[in-house]
Amino acid sequence: MVSQTFSLTRRVEFHETAAAGLMHFSNFYRWMEVCEHEWFRALSLPMMSTTPAGLRFGWPRREAACGFVRPLRCGDVVRITGSIVDAGQASLGFEFVFEKDRAGKWTEVARGRMTTVHVRQDSTGRMETEPMPKAVRAALASNAR
Amino acid sequence: MVSQTFSLTRRVEFHETAAAGLMHFSNFYRWMEVCEHEWFRALSLPMMSTTPAGLRFGWPRREAACGFVRPLRCGDVVRITGSIVDAGQASLGFEFVFEKDRAGKWTEVARGRMTTVHVRQDSTGRMETEPMPKAVRAALASNAR
Amino acid sequence: MVSQTFSLTRRVEFHETAAAGLMHFSNFYRWMEVCEHEWFRALSLPMMSTTPAGLRFGWPRREAACGFVRPLRCGDVVRITGSIVDAGQASLGFEFVFEKDRAGKWTEVARGRMTTVHVRQDSTGRMETEPMPKAVRAALASNAR
Amino acid sequence: MVSQTFSLTRRVEFHETAAAGLMHFSNFYRWMEVCEHEWFRALSLPMMSTTPAGLRFGWPRREAACGFVRPLRCGDVVRITGSIVDAGQASLGFEFVFEKDRAGKWTEVARGRMTTVHVRQDSTGRMETEPMPKAVRAALASNAR
Repeated sequence: MVSQTFSLTRRVEFHETAAAGLMHFSNFYRWMEVCEHEWFRALSLPMMSTTPAGLRFGWPRREAACGFVRPLRCGDVVRITGSIVDAGQASLGFEFVFEKDRAGKWTEVARGRMTTVHVRQDSTGRMETEPMPKAVRAALASNAR
Repeated sequence: MVSQTFSLTRRVEFHETAAAGLMHFSNFYRWMEVCEHEWFRALSLPMMSTTPAGLRFGWPRREAACGFVRPLRCGDVVRITGSIVDAGQASLGFEFVFEKDRAGKWTEVARGRMTTVHVRQDSTGRMETEPMPKAVRAALASNAR
Repeated sequence: MVSQTFSLTRRVEFHETAAAGLMHFSNFYRWMEVCEHEWFRALSLPMMSTTPAGLRFGWPRREAACGFVRPLRCGDVVRITGSIVDAGQASLGFEFVFEKDRAGKWTEVARGRMTTVHVRQDSTGRMETEPMPKAVRAALASNAR
Repeated sequence: MVSQTFSLTRRVEFHETAAAGLMHFSNFYRWMEVCEHEWFRALSLPMMSTTPAGLRFGWPRREAACGFVRPLRCGDVVRITGSIVDAGQASLGFEFVFEKDRAGKWTEVARGRMTTVHVRQDSTGRMETEPMPKAVRAALASNAR
């Protein structure tokens, strides 16, 4: 059975903070995507691909939400854990938990979710939903809760 | 009666796009905040303030969500319209509609919502919920639907 | 004779600041590009184009520098004025002056320069220098100091 | 004798790219700062500090420049190596070399420099130059070339 979660840790960088002294909330959405991309990379699954005929495949976001419980500051070490909570023919539903290292103990600071859709884009830029590749289904969506 | 909506337009800048050729989704959340801040500014309401004793007041985000319907590309002109959809003692619920100028007709490309909370932060960084100022309530929350 | 300068004004947004309370310096480089792009747009010159055969033309940066004299804070109104200070067969040298509105008087806060190169990129991603279009030369580089 | 260089590696993330398919050039300046901050961290030197009396010490940038030789794309692994090339009473001059992993061989893609100044800021926001702490001089500037 395949693991249905993926984690990475990173440190809040100065340029990610704002004048209130805290990490700007828009970065939580970027970090969801970083976690998604690193997860795909760890499974050797491409996030984007192009056929010789110029068809492009990718995973644009349909929606993303995040709730914020505790602030993050410059230098904080954060663990982001993604899990698959939903899967359709062409869509994946992720949940992400953000935890901060407080004296060696991980404490939840935020929790987000994101739905991505697999699409095919032709050379005119027109996008249509496309069933996800079998390899993605096998690796990520076979066991969605 | 006070207006309960606020609009601004802006153009998608190159640095806001990503390698898929589209605006990166994290910028929709930044634009919600820009709309909120310009709205406060138009009403001469401060987003942040500090007392002589060092107490700081502000409006951190409790949650923010956005659904994406159509892509935005570099140079697209976008209208962002915010409205107040909920108001508590210390919280505001916003909805934001993003529309793209397509041949002179505004077409919805995304729709988001955001909840902010009015807080008081002491000099140690400790934050507590604080009822919103009367001026904010009068201007924004008196007539929330 | 064509105008050799171009100006725009904008306001420092919250997400552009960092925890020191000031605008993050990386945004000055983004603003140089915004000024360059708006200048091209005002002259109806494309920043990027693609031929039916898939050749892409664009203006990547060769170098960019900026010196910082005074800080910018959230909400500050800034005027950015670009001028062409150098022009080769395929390159443009810009200078940008950043001024802050202090009680109605523009005060210099930073000064930057940027060199861009006109390139042709084939479908394999390989880039080569390409003489700039005549229209760009006529509009921007005919009179470089 | 203290080491006068510091290196880190990181991967180009999707949100750091732009619609031309390449990493946006503004991120090179952010990465210089990340390298500087990680270097200070590795030496247990604070980038910012505040006294009980409310004086704040920090290292704003006086200038930063970068020249771009080869493009970076999403997923590229980059090594950033900083070195101290100049040191005054209150200033540090850094050089940064950016190298891309091409089939196991590091190839230079960009080279930048940055000058930072140690300052003292009082509670009104007024900044003045302040000689750098002895610990910083001993660790970083004792042997500048």
